Amino acid sequence: MTNFQQNLEKYASLAVEVGVNVQKGQTLVINTSIDSAEFVRLVVKKAYEVGAKHVYVNWSDDTVNRTKYDLAPDEAFQEFPEWKAREVETLAEGGAAFMSIVSSSPDLLKGVNPDRISNFQKVAGKAMSKYRQFIQSDKVSWCVLAAPSKDWAAKVFPDASEEEQVDLLWDAIFKAVRADQADPVQAWKDHDANLHEKVEYLNEKNYQKLHYTAPGTDLTIELPKGHLWVGAGSVNEEGTTFMANMPTEEVFTVPLKTGVNGKVSSTKPLSYGGNVIDNFTITFENGRIVDVKAEEGEEILKRLVDTDEGSHYLGEIALVPHESPISQSNVLFYNTLFDENASNHLAIGNAYAFCIEGGKKMSEEELEKNGLNNSITHVDFMIGSDKMNIDGVKEDGSTEAVFRDGGWAF
Amino acid sequence: MTNFQQNLEKYASLAVEVGVNVQKGQTLVINTSIDSAEFVRLVVKKAYEVGAKHVYVNWSDDTVNRTKYDLAPDEAFQEFPEWKAREVETLAEGGAAFMSIVSSSPDLLKGVNPDRISNFQKVAGKAMSKYRQFIQSDKVSWCVLAAPSKDWAAKVFPDASEEEQVDLLWDAIFKAVRADQADPVQAWKDHDANLHEKVEYLNEKNYQKLHYTAPGTDLTIELPKGHLWVGAGSVNEEGTTFMANMPTEEVFTVPLKTGVNGKVSSTKPLSYGGNVIDNFTITFENGRIVDVKAEEGEEILKRLVDTDEGSHYLGEIALVPHESPISQSNVLFYNTLFDENASNHLAIGNAYAFCIEGGKKMSEEELEKNGLNNSITHVDFMIGSDKMNIDGVKEDGSTEAVFRDGGWAF
Repeated sequence: MTNFQQNLEKYASLAVEVGVNVQKGQTLVINTSIDSAEFVRLVVKKAYEVGAKHVYVNWSDDTVNRTKYDLAPDEAFQEFPEWKAREVETLAEGGAAFMSIVSSSPDLLKGVNPDRISNFQKVAGKAMSKYRQFIQSDKVSWCVLAAPSKDWAAKVFPDASEEEQVDLLWDAIFKAVRADQADPVQAWKDHDANLHEKVEYLNEKNYQKLHYTAPGTDLTIELPKGHLWVGAGSVNEEGTTFMANMPTEEVFTVPLKTGVNGKVSSTKPLSYGGNVIDNFTITFENGRIVDVKAEEGEEILKRLVDTDEGSHYLGEIALVPHESPISQSNVLFYNTLFDENASNHLAIGNAYAFCIEGGKKMSEEELEKNGLNNSITHVDFMIGSDKMNIDGVKEDGSTEAVFRDGGWAF
Repeated sequence: MTNFQQNLEKYASLAVEVGVNVQKGQTLVINTSIDSAEFVRLVVKKAYEVGAKHVYVNWSDDTVNRTKYDLAPDEAFQEFPEWKAREVETLAEGGAAFMSIVSSSPDLLKGVNPDRISNFQKVAGKAMSKYRQFIQSDKVSWCVLAAPSKDWAAKVFPDASEEEQVDLLWDAIFKAVRADQADPVQAWKDHDANLHEKVEYLNEKNYQKLHYTAPGTDLTIELPKGHLWVGAGSVNEEGTTFMANMPTEEVFTVPLKTGVNGKVSSTKPLSYGGNVIDNFTITFENGRIVDVKAEEGEEILKRLVDTDEGSHYLGEIALVPHESPISQSNVLFYNTLFDENASNHLAIGNAYAFCIEGGKKMSEEELEKNGLNNSITHVDFMIGSDKMNIDGVKEDGSTEAVFRDGGWAF
């Protein structure tokens, strides 16, 4: 077996055993591209080996998707098939685990009429809201991970030869998800313990606000009463642990919807709906986005903010040391799954119910009353750098260093 | 553009314009394997170009399917997801067209526990019965066509080199579907007219019985009152023409369920559920199968006959001259779509409602009362050869030659 084959096998085991943590008799749903067939076949095999009853693979193809955006009539983007939404709801109600293996190029939808993209995001977001609740409240196990496509690899490694690009991206992914280590499952246990230490520290401190400063950034974020910092492993309704993202280097919580004030500048490009938004600043007043500027993709960013009322507010704040392994790799993946784990970030849109005490059992109204934002969208953007400082503000107004020069201060 | 590319483009146009005949604003559903991606992408493009609103591609993968048969628990084959059945029903109710591009090797499920296969066929057949009614009564447009997979090509051309096998199968398919002709659409029009001539002749004759004789075969098949011979183009509920199979060389009708007597011998192997059944004879008494013998796959054939009550009876009789283009190619495709068009054949199982006057509007009970068989399955098997004679028996007992030495006698 080649080194590549060994890493691929270890990665497939991680996806099944640590990622969604498939249980005996469970159904696994895999959303993936036909580009990832070799890896997917290994994942399917490992899932049945640990006792899965059904593995349903929902294959897609980037070319077919792009062809629709280019050639279908406008009406095609103003409706979303109900049967597709019912399908995933039914599977989630039955306790299935959901794995997404992403591989699309960030440029997939470059040049597409942005109306088509935003219309489709809206109707899909609305139709899938019930399913999204299953995922975002961790009722079922889910895991997002990645595999290279040719186009994505070419974007990440434009200077390498065509044959090398995919190999280089595989290597970067294997490193980021610790699949290249001798005992990846143990490596994830250690990593999980380390992130949980940070989580416990921050939950004990129970800061009232965080104050971010960096070039182009001066932002204060109030935290809601009962907010919970979380990170690494999650636990579903059945008590099964799972890893929602692979890689994951972040600890995160929710902001108080109306408690965000000031200005923040991006430090990495944001790939959104197949387009790139870069070098942007966002200004907040009492939580609401009141101004956005972008050197690239400003129109796309404005449309993102205009998705619904909730997309004018933040739903997540996440801390990642600038010296994370992914950051150290110096690879810009043009993919949130990786780039968010290289940098402090925020998310526009929906807040995670599990980031507030008792939140998993609250209705949407109760969550809003507790200061959590509600939206059909949730989009991360990167703000961290080695010049970022963050202070924690306690109830008595005193401050403590949380981040200094882009790294943990404690 | 290479010759191959040209043929592939022409084949994609045939699939869209002649096969399902996609209409403006219509939804097209494509069931296919990831092996056929290159061809599928062309089909999708052509479908949008002629005005399709949505093209949904349901990709599958032979390796993933086989892995399930090898590794999933027994229970996995005793249930079929309701949401999958609802999905296709909803699409059919909305007037979608359905294209299946088949490519699996006939050996795909070789060695699999036959209980798993027959259990799954039963639950799938039951769950999909409402959808099957849409298809088998031609309410919606549908088309089955083929594209090579590596394994299928290796089965058909075992003596060719690995690189040549897929190319040879493509060439054989292009020839069979007339995609290699200068104007394939016109070629299909001529072909359609020719088959309709035979259909009209047979409908005018309105034989009461057919009497088949050949080595190992002496079979009398009674035809129900009001039976209709059909062939080539079909017409859906909306009045749109379509071609249910590409290729198609047959004219066919339904037998009287209880009017089949005698013995028939197969002349080509039957590929069923990933297994091969070969050199078999079937004996009928008053329509019911009372004995089967097979040199290869006898157990599989017995299970097929035991699927349900209706699978003990015939549902289709089809006439194909032994000198059809596919027969002349001398290629054994190990695939019913092709092999049935090289030979006279019969089908075990469900009868087509449109093969009897007024049948499209009859309930299941009315169809049974008129002598049509009802089953969850429908499986063709080949009985034609250059030694086959068929006589038509008129109401007054007189006979006329229909087939002589494997070819049309009129």
